Amino acid sequence: KINSERLWESLMEMAKIGPGVAGGNNRQTLTDEDAQGRALFQTWCEAAGMTMGVDSMGNMFMTRAGTDPDALPVYMGSHLDTQPTGGKYDGILGVLGGLEAVRTMNDLGIKTKHPIVLTNWTNEEGTRFAPAMLASGVFAGKHEQDWAYDRVDAKGLKFGDELKRIGWVGDEPVGARKMHAMFELHIEQGPVLEAEGKDIGVVTHGQGLRWIECTVEGKDSHTGSTPMHMRKNAGRGLALLTELVHEIAMKHQPGAVGAIGHIDVYPNSRNVIPGKVVFTVDFRSHLPEVLHAMEAEYYERAPQLCEEIGVTFSSEISGQFEPPAFDETLVGAVRNAAERLGYSHMDIVSGAGHDACWINDVAPTAMIMCPCVDGLSHNEAEEISPAWAAAGTDVLLHAVLETAQI
Amino acid sequence: KINSERLWESLMEMAKIGPGVAGGNNRQTLTDEDAQGRALFQTWCEAAGMTMGVDSMGNMFMTRAGTDPDALPVYMGSHLDTQPTGGKYDGILGVLGGLEAVRTMNDLGIKTKHPIVLTNWTNEEGTRFAPAMLASGVFAGKHEQDWAYDRVDAKGLKFGDELKRIGWVGDEPVGARKMHAMFELHIEQGPVLEAEGKDIGVVTHGQGLRWIECTVEGKDSHTGSTPMHMRKNAGRGLALLTELVHEIAMKHQPGAVGAIGHIDVYPNSRNVIPGKVVFTVDFRSHLPEVLHAMEAEYYERAPQLCEEIGVTFSSEISGQFEPPAFDETLVGAVRNAAERLGYSHMDIVSGAGHDACWINDVAPTAMIMCPCVDGLSHNEAEEISPAWAAAGTDVLLHAVLETAQI
Ligand SMILES: NC(=O)NCCC(=O)O
Ligand SMILES: NC(=O)NCCC(=O)O
Repeated sequence: KINSERLWESLMEMAKIGPGVAGGNNRQTLTDEDAQGRALFQTWCEAAGMTMGVDSMGNMFMTRAGTDPDALPVYMGSHLDTQPTGGKYDGILGVLGGLEAVRTMNDLGIKTKHPIVLTNWTNEEGTRFAPAMLASGVFAGKHEQDWAYDRVDAKGLKFGDELKRIGWVGDEPVGARKMHAMFELHIEQGPVLEAEGKDIGVVTHGQGLRWIECTVEGKDSHTGSTPMHMRKNAGRGLALLTELVHEIAMKHQPGAVGAIGHIDVYPNSRNVIPGKVVFTVDFRSHLPEVLHAMEAEYYERAPQLCEEIGVTFSSEISGQFEPPAFDETLVGAVRNAAERLGYSHMDIVSGAGHDACWINDVAPTAMIMCPCVDGLSHNEAEEISPAWAAAGTDVLLHAVLETAQI
Repeated sequence: KINSERLWESLMEMAKIGPGVAGGNNRQTLTDEDAQGRALFQTWCEAAGMTMGVDSMGNMFMTRAGTDPDALPVYMGSHLDTQPTGGKYDGILGVLGGLEAVRTMNDLGIKTKHPIVLTNWTNEEGTRFAPAMLASGVFAGKHEQDWAYDRVDAKGLKFGDELKRIGWVGDEPVGARKMHAMFELHIEQGPVLEAEGKDIGVVTHGQGLRWIECTVEGKDSHTGSTPMHMRKNAGRGLALLTELVHEIAMKHQPGAVGAIGHIDVYPNSRNVIPGKVVFTVDFRSHLPEVLHAMEAEYYERAPQLCEEIGVTFSSEISGQFEPPAFDETLVGAVRNAAERLGYSHMDIVSGAGHDACWINDVAPTAMIMCPCVDGLSHNEAEEISPAWAAAGTDVLLHAVLETAQI
């Protein structure tokens, strides 16, 4: 078993970098804080005897050598970047849990046939630069690197320029690495495991996702002197589509979700009727047919609703993936490890997108989940117990060792 | 009659300071651009033989001496600040029209018994610092200066600090000046005059206003992994209240308006359900009973609607005034001037708030309006014709001369 105290200490140490305003973290991708977090992680890995490779998307690969020079590595890892008002564990647990697994192997003098590589994927959250899981997506061949470099944040800064600015453009070409297997440990970010009283979620599938970036255009004009019948209020378009998204998702219960999290209003002045609103719809389901039905209904009804109130609707996709099904052998290895270690477990579907969802397309992949309090995530109050973190990390260690062969 | 070409040239010259992105202006209050606009105005006034006084709210008072040392001055003016995506005439015409009136008096060697004072009121727009008409409000005793100094913009900067930074804290105590009368020339910002084919609006009343700053709070959580029934989506609160405001205003047609122009969503991330939305409702009517009925209905129904979807509602007033009725003698002077000069005219109600609405409480006040194309204002495409500008300025000149006594 892993050293639970050491794991917790590392989690708390990392959380000091980019503190939030309410006990959580704001360590968004490619900020100075992200660079500090990367440097700390590098120091820790090198102290644990690992050697670093970095690719041109800034993905970090920390290698613990294996005994067979021809064996492909077993990968594990997640991400160190956070939401603007994010928690201390979303992503971090998968990276520092991987580090704790390596430290435990070192303590016990365990050698594996396959090398083990611990990864920190760049820009998983997708808040500063959409889409989410950007760098693992380039790794898996889903996006072109040039396209990824051109993504801009709300200030108009480019991903490529910011990666360079913080000094983490590596010399490896992206996606050149071949993997024997990849494991990602992550907090559930939902309420199921805690409600069912299970220590471990064995993730069999993920949800598919559509991010639809919508622009509603009306005409900005004076709130006081523009008669009601002459208004083209883009804010009303946002209102009607917020409720439409909710209604569509509610039709497909259980098994689907929908909401609007990103909203920019122009010119955003108390006495100006909004002339333009840009916002992103987030639809998800683990059932492909449900995902497609939600998307189709939205595309049909959104422009109609806008037309009825005299505003125009346009949209483009800013993120999408189909529901992934993880590798059965590796999922079995996770289930066996939990069983062997005596942890209660259940099969679950991941509500969130993860780097593992992309890597699953290019290598056998599986995920391990541990509960989080009230299912709360993407919130500074996100919380887990040291015991939950330790159980997940134990299962990660055992599944990796089984796959990497002692 | 005034010199229409010279007036237009000055308007175009001022519009070069703080250009917008679409042909209009972004010269928000207490920015560097505001300071540049003030300096240019000062140069022009001093060249026209006027002397400057500035009060501790940054209000500028440019005096043309009268012949009777005991006579109280006749004031005219408006504001040089603009919306973030504002037009070239909203406010500016009233200030530079006043300057043109003085230049014409100089050309014709006209002397008046009462001194004439041309004013540029600070922060009329209220976009950067709410409420609107902030400095004329302090002048009229509606707000305390300390309170005004503490208003913060979206970046957390204080009004008082920004006024100091741009170097326009004057040494006069605010509101110390006594006025014989005050005239404000302004573009209509609505469609009535153009539709009716009138050159001049004789403003008899204004609309009253309520700015209700609302906070809807839910819980920020993951858009993917939070089940629909566990969500507390503050964005849905915004949606329901956007439609509520519209519905309430529509009940009182004609004679009332309502909309939400300012909206801030937290944390504003694509994959986070909004935990908090802060926005400002703008209700207006020239009928006090309608204004009060709209406000009462909103306060009754908004918290209920929020409760039904599991979010909380709170609010505070960030701007308010009752419908003003302007001074009958001065309104008569405006009507007579239009008649004498042969301009078509009609009595109208001002849809927007104006500095004149506050000053009306401490001195006899009247307003003159000229048409604007399509009634469009608070939009960079705001447009007027040189002939409309000249007609309004002619009426201003004549009404002021009648009141200040040649
Ligand atoms: N795990 C996680 O929150 N990933 C961000 C991408 C998503 O929105 O699902
Ligand atoms: N005239 C004008 O647009 N004033 C701003 C205050 C208001 O919103 O009415």
